[in-house]
Amino acid sequence: MLNVLTLQEALESARKRFVPVRRTESVPIGRALWRRTADEITAEEFVPDFDRSSVDGYAVRASDTFGCTEAIPAILPIQREILMGEGADFTLKPGCCASIPTGGAVPSGADSVVMIEYTEEYGDGTIGISKSAAPGQNMIYRGDDVRPGKTVIRKNRVLSPQDIGALAALGIDHVAVAVPLTVGILSTGDELVPPEEKPGPGQIRDVNSLLLDSMFRDAGFRTIRYGIIRDEEELLKTAVAEALKECDAVVLSGGSSVGIRDAAGRVIESFGPLLFHGLAMKPGKPTILGGSGNQPVFGLPGHPVAVFFAARLLVIPLLAYLEGRTQQEKTVSARLTENVSANHGRAFYCACRLKQDRGELFAEPIRAKSGLITSLTEADGYFCIERDCEGLPAGVEIPIVTIRGVE
Amino acid sequence: MLNVLTLQEALESARKRFVPVRRTESVPIGRALWRRTADEITAEEFVPDFDRSSVDGYAVRASDTFGCTEAIPAILPIQREILMGEGADFTLKPGCCASIPTGGAVPSGADSVVMIEYTEEYGDGTIGISKSAAPGQNMIYRGDDVRPGKTVIRKNRVLSPQDIGALAALGIDHVAVAVPLTVGILSTGDELVPPEEKPGPGQIRDVNSLLLDSMFRDAGFRTIRYGIIRDEEELLKTAVAEALKECDAVVLSGGSSVGIRDAAGRVIESFGPLLFHGLAMKPGKPTILGGSGNQPVFGLPGHPVAVFFAARLLVIPLLAYLEGRTQQEKTVSARLTENVSANHGRAFYCACRLKQDRGELFAEPIRAKSGLITSLTEADGYFCIERDCEGLPAGVEIPIVTIRGVE
Repeated sequence: MLNVLTLQEALESARKRFVPVRRTESVPIGRALWRRTADEITAEEFVPDFDRSSVDGYAVRASDTFGCTEAIPAILPIQREILMGEGADFTLKPGCCASIPTGGAVPSGADSVVMIEYTEEYGDGTIGISKSAAPGQNMIYRGDDVRPGKTVIRKNRVLSPQDIGALAALGIDHVAVAVPLTVGILSTGDELVPPEEKPGPGQIRDVNSLLLDSMFRDAGFRTIRYGIIRDEEELLKTAVAEALKECDAVVLSGGSSVGIRDAAGRVIESFGPLLFHGLAMKPGKPTILGGSGNQPVFGLPGHPVAVFFAARLLVIPLLAYLEGRTQQEKTVSARLTENVSANHGRAFYCACRLKQDRGELFAEPIRAKSGLITSLTEADGYFCIERDCEGLPAGVEIPIVTIRGVE
Repeated sequence: MLNVLTLQEALESARKRFVPVRRTESVPIGRALWRRTADEITAEEFVPDFDRSSVDGYAVRASDTFGCTEAIPAILPIQREILMGEGADFTLKPGCCASIPTGGAVPSGADSVVMIEYTEEYGDGTIGISKSAAPGQNMIYRGDDVRPGKTVIRKNRVLSPQDIGALAALGIDHVAVAVPLTVGILSTGDELVPPEEKPGPGQIRDVNSLLLDSMFRDAGFRTIRYGIIRDEEELLKTAVAEALKECDAVVLSGGSSVGIRDAAGRVIESFGPLLFHGLAMKPGKPTILGGSGNQPVFGLPGHPVAVFFAARLLVIPLLAYLEGRTQQEKTVSARLTENVSANHGRAFYCACRLKQDRGELFAEPIRAKSGLITSLTEADGYFCIERDCEGLPAGVEIPIVTIRGVE
C-alpha cells in the first residue's frame, strides 16, 4: 500500500512522472477562436501597406496651406480624385490637392490631409482651405499599425475575437494552435445505469460520465466516453487498454466500495506503477494515479461531489500541465457566515454560495452529505480548510475559488 | 437627418422598438453544456430513490447495538449480504445485521449502518460491534438529495458541468434550452479583399467580418457571414434582404466615407425607419440602427476599433436583450498611469493594459490611431470618459471593463 499524499505532493510527483505533450495543428483563423497559439505570431507585412487618410477631405502638401485663414483661404486646384480601393499611382504636384475618402491612398508628394469641413469647393476645379495643415495630419502611414517582424500575438495565448481580427488584418489566414489532449472517461459499478434509463431496485444513474465529460470540455480538453463498465477486473482492464489506444489520458470513476476500489487499483497498476493510492483530501480520498508510459490513468471515487473535487484539483491541473499551460483559478475574498469544523487530518473542501450584502461578500457553506450532486448546482465556489486546521470561525474572511462565470 | 443619440438613449430606444424573441429547443444533456435553460427545471423523482449506505459496513437496528463497547461487543448474526446494484427486498430481522457496501440499498427494518472499522467478523456467520450506533447514522435517505417538485435549476441559467451532472442524476436526459439568435454579417467597401488575399494598391483586407463573427460567437450567438459587398446601393439592398430571410439580425460594417455612409443609411432605411444615425461616442460615431419588423439592422463604421466598441456596447447588449438575457460586464478598479484628455462632446472609449505593481492594479491607456486593430490585441480592458468630462488625470482610480479572460 502506498502512502496517502497531500494534493500538493500528488501534483508534484505527477509532474515528475509525466512530461508535457506538444501537438499542434494549423487551422483557418475563422475556426481559431478560443484556441491556444502554438507559437509566437509575427507580422510579415506592413499594415496598412500604403499611406492612408483617416478622414474625408483633400490630400495636400502642408506647406501649401501655411498661413491660410477663413478670411484668406489657400486656393488649390484639384489635380485628381482618389477613389476608395484604388492605388494613388501619381505624384501630387506642388500647389495642388487631390480629393480623398477616409481610408484612401495618399499620393506621393502629399504629406497631410485637410478635413472636408475646412474646405470649400468653388465649382471651377479649385478649392479653398481655411485652416493651416500640419505635416502628417490625418495620415495613417504605411506600417503605422504593424511592421514586418513585430510580435503580434504571443505563444500560448487563447485567441480572442480581437486577436482573430488582428490576424485577418495581417493576412495570416491560418494559425498554428495546440491540439487539446483527448481524455477517455469510464464509469465502473454494477449499480450504475445510463442517465436515460430508470434505475431498478438498488441501482442509480451514472452521473460521473457526463459530469467529467462536461468538466473536461469546459476546461478545454476533448473527450471520449466509454460508458459503464461492469465491476470485473478483466473487463475493466480491456476497457482501459482500449481507451489508452485513442486517448492521452484515461479517467476511471466509481467503485466506491473497498473490493472494487482495490480492483481499480490493480487494473491501473497493471499498466504501470501507481504514484499514489489515496489523497489526504475530503471529499476525494480514494483517488488513485498510475499511468501507461506518458499517459496518466486516474482512478476517481464514485461519489459525484468527490469526483468533482478530484477532477478539478488533481486531474485538470495535471492535464493542463501536460498541454504546457497552467490552469488559473479565480478567487474572491468573502466572509464566512457560520462556523465550519474540519478536524479530519485531510484538507477539507467545502462548496459555498456567495451573497452580496451591503457591499460586502459573504460565503455561505453548503452542508451536504457526500455524493449529493445537486448541492453543487447551488454552489458559486468553494473554499479549503487545510489539513492542520480544525475549522474556521464565522466572520473570518477567506479566499473562495469561484466555479461559476457571470451570467 | 436624425439626432445623434448617446449610447444610453440608443439602447433605450432600441429596447422600445424591438421585442424579445423566445425560441427554445430540446437537446440531450450531453450536448447542453453552456446552453441557457428555457424554463425552470424541477425534479420528478426521488434522488436517491432508496435508502443508501454511505459507508462499507453492516446495516443494523440501532437499538440492537445500544450500550456495546470494545470489551462487550454486540454480537449479531449476518442475515444477508447486500450486493451493489441490487435491491434490498427483505426486512432485517430484529437482532440481525446485513453486510452492505457503500451505496448499497438499506433493507427495511434497519435504521443505521455501522462502519466496518467498528466490527469484527467471527467467521461463524456472526459479527461483533464495538460501538453504539445512532439511528440514521451513515444513511442517505430516499429523497435526501432531491424530492419531486424541487426546483433544481432556474430559468435562464447557463448550464455548468455540475448542472449537467445534476440533470443526469435526476434522470432528465433532455433539456429545453434557448435557441441563440442568428446574426448575419456583411462587409461593404470597394477597397476590401478577403483576409486570405493579398491586397492590391489602395486595397485592405476585410477585418470586420471575422472580428464581428468571433465577437458574436464569443457572446453566445450564431453567425452567418455574407462576405464583402461592393459599394452599390442595389447590391447592398439585395444582400441585406437575403440575410434577413435567414437571420434574426443583420450587421453591416464599412463604408466609412461620407457617400457610402449615406448609402448604407438609405439601404437600412428602405427596410424600416431608422432609430438613429450617429452615436455620441468615440470611436463608433457613424453607427446606424434600423430594422425590418422585429429584426434589427445595424450599420457599423469601417474602422475595426470603432466596430469593436460599437458591437460590444450597442449590438451585443441589444441582441442579448432580444434573447431575454442581460450581458454583464466584468469590471475591476485600477489607477490610471497617465493623463487622458477627451473633450469631444462624445463619450470616449479607450483601450488599456492592466498591470499589477506591488499589489496595486494600474491601467495604462493604449494610444492608437483609430482603426489600428492590433492595438486591441494588447488590451486587457477599456474605460470610458463621459461626454461631459474633459479628461482624467493620472493617478485617479477608475473602473475598467475587462475584455480578456484569465489564461
